[in-house]
Amino acid sequence: MLRSSFASKRLFTSSSRLLAGTTSSIEARAVVFTEHGDPTKVLKAHRYKLPKLAKGENVIQGVYPSKPKVRDDLGPEPVSIMGNEGVATVEGFVEDGEVEKTLKVGDKGTWASHANLPFTSLIPLPASLHLTHRQSATLAINPPTAYRMLSDFVPLNPEDPNRKKGKKQWVIQNGANSAVGQAVIQIAKEWGVGTINLVRDRPSIEALKEQLTALGADRVLTYDEFLDRSNDIRSQIKQWVGKDGELLLALNCVGGKETAEMAKLLGVGGKLVTYGGMAKTALALPPSLFIFKKLTATGFWLTNWVATHPRERTPMMHALAGLIADGKLKEPETEVVVLEGSDDDVRQRLSDVMKRLEEGRAGKKVLLHWQEESEPSGADRQADDV
Amino acid sequence: MLRSSFASKRLFTSSSRLLAGTTSSIEARAVVFTEHGDPTKVLKAHRYKLPKLAKGENVIQGVYPSKPKVRDDLGPEPVSIMGNEGVATVEGFVEDGEVEKTLKVGDKGTWASHANLPFTSLIPLPASLHLTHRQSATLAINPPTAYRMLSDFVPLNPEDPNRKKGKKQWVIQNGANSAVGQAVIQIAKEWGVGTINLVRDRPSIEALKEQLTALGADRVLTYDEFLDRSNDIRSQIKQWVGKDGELLLALNCVGGKETAEMAKLLGVGGKLVTYGGMAKTALALPPSLFIFKKLTATGFWLTNWVATHPRERTPMMHALAGLIADGKLKEPETEVVVLEGSDDDVRQRLSDVMKRLEEGRAGKKVLLHWQEESEPSGADRQADDV
Repeated sequence: MLRSSFASKRLFTSSSRLLAGTTSSIEARAVVFTEHGDPTKVLKAHRYKLPKLAKGENVIQGVYPSKPKVRDDLGPEPVSIMGNEGVATVEGFVEDGEVEKTLKVGDKGTWASHANLPFTSLIPLPASLHLTHRQSATLAINPPTAYRMLSDFVPLNPEDPNRKKGKKQWVIQNGANSAVGQAVIQIAKEWGVGTINLVRDRPSIEALKEQLTALGADRVLTYDEFLDRSNDIRSQIKQWVGKDGELLLALNCVGGKETAEMAKLLGVGGKLVTYGGMAKTALALPPSLFIFKKLTATGFWLTNWVATHPRERTPMMHALAGLIADGKLKEPETEVVVLEGSDDDVRQRLSDVMKRLEEGRAGKKVLLHWQEESEPSGADRQADDV
Repeated sequence: MLRSSFASKRLFTSSSRLLAGTTSSIEARAVVFTEHGDPTKVLKAHRYKLPKLAKGENVIQGVYPSKPKVRDDLGPEPVSIMGNEGVATVEGFVEDGEVEKTLKVGDKGTWASHANLPFTSLIPLPASLHLTHRQSATLAINPPTAYRMLSDFVPLNPEDPNRKKGKKQWVIQNGANSAVGQAVIQIAKEWGVGTINLVRDRPSIEALKEQLTALGADRVLTYDEFLDRSNDIRSQIKQWVGKDGELLLALNCVGGKETAEMAKLLGVGGKLVTYGGMAKTALALPPSLFIFKKLTATGFWLTNWVATHPRERTPMMHALAGLIADGKLKEPETEVVVLEGSDDDVRQRLSDVMKRLEEGRAGKKVLLHWQEESEPSGADRQADDV
């Protein structure tokens, strides 16, 4: 049986005592919703007997193409279980066989895409790496997204035989403070790739610039600084990249005005890779960039990649876990929210957290931890070993 | 020496008696401009002794990245010669040598990019193909643009070993009535690829639909029909393509609202190829298409392609000339405007033609023909043998 802890930013995920087997009579708890809507209101706690595993993605806002599956086998009312990223420690097994050949008691497993956990969706992380729960719970989605975007569009990965020698390579990204953005900065640094990082202005901007610089960012600019024409930032960036450097990759999770400006800075044949649309508007790009500068705009979604690269995932995750263990890839700042007490208590706590997230007051990635009902109370458990 | 005839739509091109050699004392005439500006006003006739050849692209509106070279060796005033597409018949040679090995008297040559014609920029079209001047003069840019866009992004060319078998392939395009669009329809037809064609509404829309259908278009829709939601055109198009068909390529020379709708119709991994921006606005595309549907937006410009594929051009041009000779690729409707008489007469005629083009009243591609001063008058020469 697995004890679980879950990572998410806007997309909550939770379910306790998930099994690396197929059936059981153990009671599980999960964060669920029975209708789409305001995340501060629709999330609630749910108890159920663990049923047979079923595949299905569990996402609350209904904007993702893979809608959470509505389950009617978990109780009197149909529910959808939240969750697409988490970590659990193996405590035992419901069934012997395949599972025990790979996982050992004490190992951790990280996953994406399945809250009811078929064994094949688990990525085992050997206990010998000594990763914390916080490190493991934030590993499944964002770092691999960064890793793939730095590998698959322009050959920047040092293991890629097509990586250019001689010309220092650069990347520009918006949303550089996101969990993906921070992973981009650190992986690029490790690979000898320069980064130009754009972030929102904020009262604590200098501290943020210092934080990203400490992670390995070469340059950090606010969107205002980047878009201010009196700064002549374009020639400044060209100077940073230099004649013996090359800027061919832009990573976009926002899609505002700055995105077209990032695309304009790319050399001929550059790639603009979109992995998010926080600005919630269409991406507006001048046709001349496509025609005359051979721009390619494309996108990345880890779920698509995983579906088409079943064998490449585990080695990549081990490479990333190795970077983490070596202190070269730090997890984003996290806050553990312990779910405990009555279903009403849990519901209230979920609502409070979602409100803080919506108002942008969390500032950290929130990890949900289901308190085992036999465990000591949550107040004692918010340390890094949660 | 070559006798010349020139094709253009908005971009005039002209210069008579171009040489397949390097220097001479023959007097040439050309359409030139000495300042950028309103094309109905700035174009004029110019006489000069043919100088040494110089490379340079000659484009009037100054919107292309390759600006026309200003020449100060052609007379007292600096001028820029117009022209990037045309045809000429070989009548003789100024210099013997390389040229005569490939070209024979009576052959035609078609070209792009150079008004002062270095031999290497000529694509020889053997006299044995019996192409008319109208066919040859319109061959250098638009049909190869169509050919490459159907070959290089999704493997639709029957000679491509990666072309899928079993699934009928489809293409959707806007501006389908353009010279490129008409070539797309006909080449796709020849290759067994279905086409869905979008055009502007107009009083003669039924005649246009019939004309494009006669060329091989499977479906022709106006933008209004395409964007009218009450038509539920999306499910209709899905039905046309069918479960055993695939729509992975969209060709865009407009960039209006219809472009995002074309992109939405593409299957997962589809390609949106932009080769023009007639709407003169940014291309607006939903980020979700890039992230979840693996859309790739890119562009095509023949000049870029030619620069990077020096050996593949002539075989492609011969394949296209073969399609024309077989009656499978018809040139767009053309109108020959004969330039003759005094420089003022020529200037007036150029101004009239540009006005008609600007007002959209030409309806046809305009070919400029410089009347040799010893030839019979233009009135007798507007037949297809011009």
